[in-house]
Amino acid sequence: MEVTRQNFKDCLSTVYSAIEEADFLAIDGEFSGISDGPNVSALTNGLDTPEERYTKLKKHSMDFLMFQFGLCTFRYDSAKSKYITKPFNFYVFPKPFSRTSPDIKFICQSSSIDFLASQGFDFNKVFGHGIPYLNQDEEAQLREQTEERRNQHANGLGTPSFISPSSSKVPAHVPDEQKDYINKVVEKVERLFNGNGKTLNLDPCTGFQRKLIYQTLSWKFPKGLHVETLETEKKERYIQISKVDEEERKRREQQKLEKEQEELNNAVGFSRVIHAISKSGKLVVGHNMLLDVMHTIHQFYCPLPEVKSDPFSIPVVLLDTKLMASTQPFKELINNTSLAELEKQAKETPFKPPQVETAEGFPSYDTAQEQLHEAGYDAYITGLCFVSMANHLGKTTNFSSTFGRVWALFPFHLLFLMRIIDIPYLNITGPDLQPKRDHVLYVTFPKEWKTSDLYQLFSAFGNIQVSWIDDTSAFVSLSQTDQVQIAMNTSRYAESYKIQTYADYIQGKQQEKEKLGQPAKTWGDDGWVKHHYPSSTASAGFGFSRKRSISPTQGEQGGDDGVSGDGWNHYSFPDSTGSKKIKYDGV
Amino acid sequence: MEVTRQNFKDCLSTVYSAIEEADFLAIDGEFSGISDGPNVSALTNGLDTPEERYTKLKKHSMDFLMFQFGLCTFRYDSAKSKYITKPFNFYVFPKPFSRTSPDIKFICQSSSIDFLASQGFDFNKVFGHGIPYLNQDEEAQLREQTEERRNQHANGLGTPSFISPSSSKVPAHVPDEQKDYINKVVEKVERLFNGNGKTLNLDPCTGFQRKLIYQTLSWKFPKGLHVETLETEKKERYIQISKVDEEERKRREQQKLEKEQEELNNAVGFSRVIHAISKSGKLVVGHNMLLDVMHTIHQFYCPLPEVKSDPFSIPVVLLDTKLMASTQPFKELINNTSLAELEKQAKETPFKPPQVETAEGFPSYDTAQEQLHEAGYDAYITGLCFVSMANHLGKTTNFSSTFGRVWALFPFHLLFLMRIIDIPYLNITGPDLQPKRDHVLYVTFPKEWKTSDLYQLFSAFGNIQVSWIDDTSAFVSLSQTDQVQIAMNTSRYAESYKIQTYADYIQGKQQEKEKLGQPAKTWGDDGWVKHHYPSSTASAGFGFSRKRSISPTQGEQGGDDGVSGDGWNHYSFPDSTGSKKIKYDGV
Repeated sequence: MEVTRQNFKDCLSTVYSAIEEADFLAIDGEFSGISDGPNVSALTNGLDTPEERYTKLKKHSMDFLMFQFGLCTFRYDSAKSKYITKPFNFYVFPKPFSRTSPDIKFICQSSSIDFLASQGFDFNKVFGHGIPYLNQDEEAQLREQTEERRNQHANGLGTPSFISPSSSKVPAHVPDEQKDYINKVVEKVERLFNGNGKTLNLDPCTGFQRKLIYQTLSWKFPKGLHVETLETEKKERYIQISKVDEEERKRREQQKLEKEQEELNNAVGFSRVIHAISKSGKLVVGHNMLLDVMHTIHQFYCPLPEVKSDPFSIPVVLLDTKLMASTQPFKELINNTSLAELEKQAKETPFKPPQVETAEGFPSYDTAQEQLHEAGYDAYITGLCFVSMANHLGKTTNFSSTFGRVWALFPFHLLFLMRIIDIPYLNITGPDLQPKRDHVLYVTFPKEWKTSDLYQLFSAFGNIQVSWIDDTSAFVSLSQTDQVQIAMNTSRYAESYKIQTYADYIQGKQQEKEKLGQPAKTWGDDGWVKHHYPSSTASAGFGFSRKRSISPTQGEQGGDDGVSGDGWNHYSFPDSTGSKKIKYDGV
Repeated sequence: MEVTRQNFKDCLSTVYSAIEEADFLAIDGEFSGISDGPNVSALTNGLDTPEERYTKLKKHSMDFLMFQFGLCTFRYDSAKSKYITKPFNFYVFPKPFSRTSPDIKFICQSSSIDFLASQGFDFNKVFGHGIPYLNQDEEAQLREQTEERRNQHANGLGTPSFISPSSSKVPAHVPDEQKDYINKVVEKVERLFNGNGKTLNLDPCTGFQRKLIYQTLSWKFPKGLHVETLETEKKERYIQISKVDEEERKRREQQKLEKEQEELNNAVGFSRVIHAISKSGKLVVGHNMLLDVMHTIHQFYCPLPEVKSDPFSIPVVLLDTKLMASTQPFKELINNTSLAELEKQAKETPFKPPQVETAEGFPSYDTAQEQLHEAGYDAYITGLCFVSMANHLGKTTNFSSTFGRVWALFPFHLLFLMRIIDIPYLNITGPDLQPKRDHVLYVTFPKEWKTSDLYQLFSAFGNIQVSWIDDTSAFVSLSQTDQVQIAMNTSRYAESYKIQTYADYIQGKQQEKEKLGQPAKTWGDDGWVKHHYPSSTASAGFGFSRKRSISPTQGEQGGDDGVSGDGWNHYSFPDSTGSKKIKYDGV
């Protein structure tokens, strides 16, 4: 179901009940761009820590706009042994609802826009009919402003749109070249005031002229007039002057305030859908969903935590189908985890085609006619992939038993990490995996160096892997850990380049952070950094405590809760030998 | 005539000849936004100097996209005593022409996008079919890259898309989970190599898999194969492997390079139209055209000068109809200089309706059915306004005599400045007017202060005017210059606020600049700053000398050329009493 500003209000109850009755939800977003960072390889270094990757995405991706939000609800009908689906495709746009509301600026990335255009994406629908939204801060701020205006009004202070006693203290200073114009307006108003007419519409004029008119009329006619700026269909502003008694004037002002209040409620718009998803607390699946989740929170809810380690609660249960498909037992069965390929493979042997039926009144998608990159369709097939994989695990289609099996194997809130060699996921609400990387060197060199210079430098060590950080530094992964010491020894007297072990590099960075007041992390014995979070109390919405970080002592004392505990021990990781190549751009 | 990527090549010669034969050109642009600055009043302070305004626009407006460019050519037909017009409406979009070409990011401002959407602007046409473009730097860089690739090729170094000796030095390291997949590919290729077939298309696969395939094949089959990545209609990338002899391989590579070269030429795209306008050296009129001119240079030509005083040459003759309409003798005749209003007034008495005719083959615009904010239409009516005003001055419709009269009264390259109290224009290639402003005070105060606090502080001085700079400072214009000393005296012991004269404030800023290595300007005796530029040598294109600024001594010695001379002395200014109000936002 396609939802725009035009039918949003009418659809809202349908959306609410679909979420209410669903067993799980699938989501997907389309964006105006992916990354405004320097270049992809610097932005997604293969040896980023999840914390670093989070910080990069927050810094370089949040200024894009999520302008299409796909939601597909899945309800298991045990009588039919089928899932009943309700797909929604929301067009979203931050239309300023008044001249004082936030005027959002967002970035477009030509390649992304060009790609979407080539897929037939309808930009006119987004920009012309997108549903507006506000995050919680904006909503609160605007409610406050409206409240304030109302109070001022009650106290007789007036607003720029109304003539009130306070604005008539001084006569307007009218520049010579405007005197004729203003005098003519005053004459017209005098005729209105003394005549039988009730209302006078002036011709459209400039903002400066409108200001002069307001000031002059408020000085000359302190009572008995209601003056208001209106817009023609062509968005030209003009002034309407009405003769009113005091009671009528107040009634009009009250009317206007009520209209404002209603407009404000409308302005919250699409965020209401996100609030409903959030309140449902249900399972939300997505494919490679890290950016979708970050954008959804950032755009419709609240600012993202400054750093990933800030305690943050997610009110729903997140599961990433790309991570699922690249993990045992599925990684053996699926050799391409892109959404389109996964959808094809997950209905072939050994999987069974998922049994689904589109609910009455919803246009049904046909997977034979791919509509990839329409958010509603992508959400739909993400749900299909999840059903296939879940059924395969549970060896049944029954919802409850299937899902029990999924939870046993797949801890939630773990989101697939693109292009990281040895860490498969980011844990959005808890501590992340942090391998020791004792076969990795941190190398700095002159900015003229290219990958081939690094290959040459390390030619004695066989197969190496280079992960560029910036123009003058890179990680170099050796194939054998015991080569590290040899490399360090031979580099001791080098002048043009410098080599550090990964551990030393991390320690150096940590020391820099501590200088800036951020706490150290402690290294565990099992090769992973262990750090503990104070139990995050359950919350009805997204949110994070104001406490930015925790000291090591506090951390050691804090207990693990169900979410941030050792859930990842159940998880089978891809090997961490760092053998995957990641610099494959351009092929 | 609507021009998109689809008909651009076919239209180009029509555009060229229209420019060639024209007596003057009118232009207009539509943008994805206006200002990403803090707020309009801080961005456009009424007492900005032209230099400051330029710097603000450069900083806060150039990241928006000019996505529609309107050009209307006007040729005077003396037989018909009419202008023959050819209007063009170009849709422009920086479509990346390859995966290595610049991936432009641009900002959209919701209010601008919403406004254009409400006017029926076709975003799908822009994003789906916009003509690409490159500025001179990008063009040069890409030509260089293509050249480099060609040279590498000639030297047998190869590119990632071709198997070449250099890439086969080491076998690919294939991660365990990819071994099966790669082995199967190798088997297929072996069958191709030993069989009768010529070509093998692999299924679409991931970039990482493509890299492994390239590496593996280049190791296993160093000769006799041509491997290329192609795209399906759905933009999925797949690998095509062809059996070729050495000659055929080289021919294919050559073919590919030639195709690249042609694509590069196409990528220059719309910039070719700007080059043609630039080369024509003709009169170019625009309405409130400062941003149009800055965007055109920035987007299609070269980076804008860092500061406005950097010598910069404009190859065409610019004339701003909004400045013209707000100057004597027109300011008496026209009370609203917005384009739509000007167009209406400039065909009524005392003006005469401009005699124009749309050239054959061009769809004609009907000014009764306004199509405002379509760039081609706006350019068209801008030209009409110019013709009306020029005819009125010349008291004839004859092109040459009319224009002689225009030049006598209106020096060119002066562009209208929005919302500046006492300086009507910015001189884009020469020195600007800089009034003494000796009735102006610079006031700093606690950030809690509002306009009303300033009115109260200066209540003894009658009518004042406040121009906000930021949260804690503003210019306050007094109505009498002799009040300045009194205000200074009374403020001497104040603690919460501070007052400086405008002259002291400017001097302080100048001293700061000098610390940063920028030269001082000298004050003339006539109340305007005089500073002189070395004669800029005529140039075939836009451009500025690398010399950033000139020392006062050099400046005094430098001669005036025709452009930067005292042309502005002919010009009648609005009074500089600073009496116009500018804080009229929100009315």
